[in-house]
Amino acid sequence: MTLKYADRMEQVKGLETREIIKFIGKPDIISFAGGLPAPELFPLEELKRISVRVLEEDGSAALQYVPTDGYLPLRKKIAERMHKIGVKASAENILIINGSQQGIDFSGKIFLNPGDTVICEKPSYLGAIGAFRAYQAQFIEITIDNDGMKVEELEKILATTPKAKLVYVTPDFQNPTGISWSTKRRKDFIEVINKYSIPVIEDNPYGELRYEGEEVPPIKSFDTEGRVIFLGTFSKILCPGFRIGWVCADKEVLRKYTLIKEVSDLQCNTMAQREIAFFLNEYNIETHIEKLKQVYKRRRDIMIRIINEEFPSEVKFSIPEGGLFAWIELPEEVNGRELLEKAQKQKVAFVPGGCFYPNGGHENSIRLNFSNMPEEKIVVGMKRLARILKEEMG
Amino acid sequence: MTLKYADRMEQVKGLETREIIKFIGKPDIISFAGGLPAPELFPLEELKRISVRVLEEDGSAALQYVPTDGYLPLRKKIAERMHKIGVKASAENILIINGSQQGIDFSGKIFLNPGDTVICEKPSYLGAIGAFRAYQAQFIEITIDNDGMKVEELEKILATTPKAKLVYVTPDFQNPTGISWSTKRRKDFIEVINKYSIPVIEDNPYGELRYEGEEVPPIKSFDTEGRVIFLGTFSKILCPGFRIGWVCADKEVLRKYTLIKEVSDLQCNTMAQREIAFFLNEYNIETHIEKLKQVYKRRRDIMIRIINEEFPSEVKFSIPEGGLFAWIELPEEVNGRELLEKAQKQKVAFVPGGCFYPNGGHENSIRLNFSNMPEEKIVVGMKRLARILKEEMG
Repeated sequence: MTLKYADRMEQVKGLETREIIKFIGKPDIISFAGGLPAPELFPLEELKRISVRVLEEDGSAALQYVPTDGYLPLRKKIAERMHKIGVKASAENILIINGSQQGIDFSGKIFLNPGDTVICEKPSYLGAIGAFRAYQAQFIEITIDNDGMKVEELEKILATTPKAKLVYVTPDFQNPTGISWSTKRRKDFIEVINKYSIPVIEDNPYGELRYEGEEVPPIKSFDTEGRVIFLGTFSKILCPGFRIGWVCADKEVLRKYTLIKEVSDLQCNTMAQREIAFFLNEYNIETHIEKLKQVYKRRRDIMIRIINEEFPSEVKFSIPEGGLFAWIELPEEVNGRELLEKAQKQKVAFVPGGCFYPNGGHENSIRLNFSNMPEEKIVVGMKRLARILKEEMG
Repeated sequence: MTLKYADRMEQVKGLETREIIKFIGKPDIISFAGGLPAPELFPLEELKRISVRVLEEDGSAALQYVPTDGYLPLRKKIAERMHKIGVKASAENILIINGSQQGIDFSGKIFLNPGDTVICEKPSYLGAIGAFRAYQAQFIEITIDNDGMKVEELEKILATTPKAKLVYVTPDFQNPTGISWSTKRRKDFIEVINKYSIPVIEDNPYGELRYEGEEVPPIKSFDTEGRVIFLGTFSKILCPGFRIGWVCADKEVLRKYTLIKEVSDLQCNTMAQREIAFFLNEYNIETHIEKLKQVYKRRRDIMIRIINEEFPSEVKFSIPEGGLFAWIELPEEVNGRELLEKAQKQKVAFVPGGCFYPNGGHENSIRLNFSNMPEEKIVVGMKRLARILKEEMG
């Protein structure tokens, strides 16, 4: 029998990136698909020591319920780290969540009525599109160039779209394009936002992974009116398996996130919160991040070199200054999904670019992750991809 | 400035049980409030060994992403345990979630349009009421007696309420009343459900904690049509800090839960999933549960003895055969919330019963948890309560 589902379920589909995780689980696959960090860089020995020490020092408290907003020492540590990137925050501005994905979902729940419009970058993060669809959102995509979202286009849309309720952006090494917004663009953006009083979700999972160029402060650091809700995560700088991220927002709006956290799943894993707080206390996470950056930069360079040297010259790409992804635009007649089928036969995976456009189109693009595979596999996989592309584009 | 929130936020309030967690965090409080398990019974030494072994044997895989549906060996183990209580299930029927609370939230997301009606027991679990309110649900409460939900009343409502989209029940040692449904009532219930083809959420966090009387199979075991969605959790039989529970449902409906899990927070904590799977492999959880039952039974007995001997005779209560809660009905003129204020001044906490009635009323009741406090504190706290009640009802 078929049960009767809510209307919103018509819009809920599986995320292609998560589907591919099953395929790439096989050991002989060379995957440029998921946004997976390099597992060999997880601080395994440190976490082994920490997991024992948390249970020895905190005892059963590490396994019991904690208040919904999260483990206070961790919230304090996160607030300190927010300070370093220019955001004035104390523990009262921090809510612990299951990775930044949960912050995106909660944002939909808090701000969107059915049929409301989310304004996002074109293209945008697949997981956000999926999360907002479950709240029956419509999408308006705003063009991005190498400096970020085009604010004149944004302003035109805000002036004419009363149903626009939320702006979702990933200004640092965007998923999927790798683009990072300039400081000027961020300031111009916040000026438009303040004119139209719309809440902004600044999703920032990759901001600390910069391989070249100058540091750029988050949009939240320019927000004087409490309209920007910042989402951070330990998934890319420590490990994703803990599912620990955070919302940083003004107290009034954070209270809404806390209420929603409470009725959604009560709280995050207590042990993981304490382990991360321990890690931040006992080890220097900045040193750890430096190590990640060195390795990821080399992997990025290798990937870019092969694109430069061996991909057909019609292919367009730009060099991401940080993050985990390179973005390729193919000639219009080449379809990313069809390309993936051919690549999978040769045991190479990536994500077709079309799925990052909520309103469809743009099938002639692909997203390549460079953080997950060791260098020699990047070489082999990229050479295979080059061959497939050459055949395809004859 | 105030941002514009979605309509659903008007119905979202903080859960009184979670608010009280902050108050009971102080060491000199005697708490009968939260549904907290006894922390001194958590298998701390075992989990210390396991956390190291998981990281040694599984390495970085224990810290990486896993597929949304969860860690396969854990799903298999859970399916085996479902078999033992009469539910035919394989790993394909199991989705890992952040405690059963997340399963309740997902049920609202999957089945409820704004204004739809949830049918529940009178009274019902506060966390479920809160979760469903965030989907703008209306509630119809069905009377329960000592055998469970009154099915004639249920049938009348189903026959006349087209907007009824979901039935939510906790048939085992219900939170808050401690009532457990008889086998006959479960069978009668499923017959009515099949007549009206409505999905049922069977929330079962306490089913394995029976202190006397015969085992009763879950409603899901009588479900031949795939209409019952069973929610289970390790929070009460192992520890709540892991935030690991499960949905057990027919494949078609489970697919919806998996899609929602994916867009909500991708997956559960990888490490916690592996640790529980290890625990189930290496230790006998049934032996562990036996130990819990012995301790909780003694605590229940002490609480009930003092109610019997020292509470005013006008107070009504029944002896729960399992679970974590005793439920007290006071004379109509006594208000549970006012009583709590007085009790808190004497450093005793409980949950006023009114909050378990989604449509209000019934303020003359209180819920007492007996699992969290050691015996001597139960004695002291209950004697204090008895004194307060005597003064009140003087």
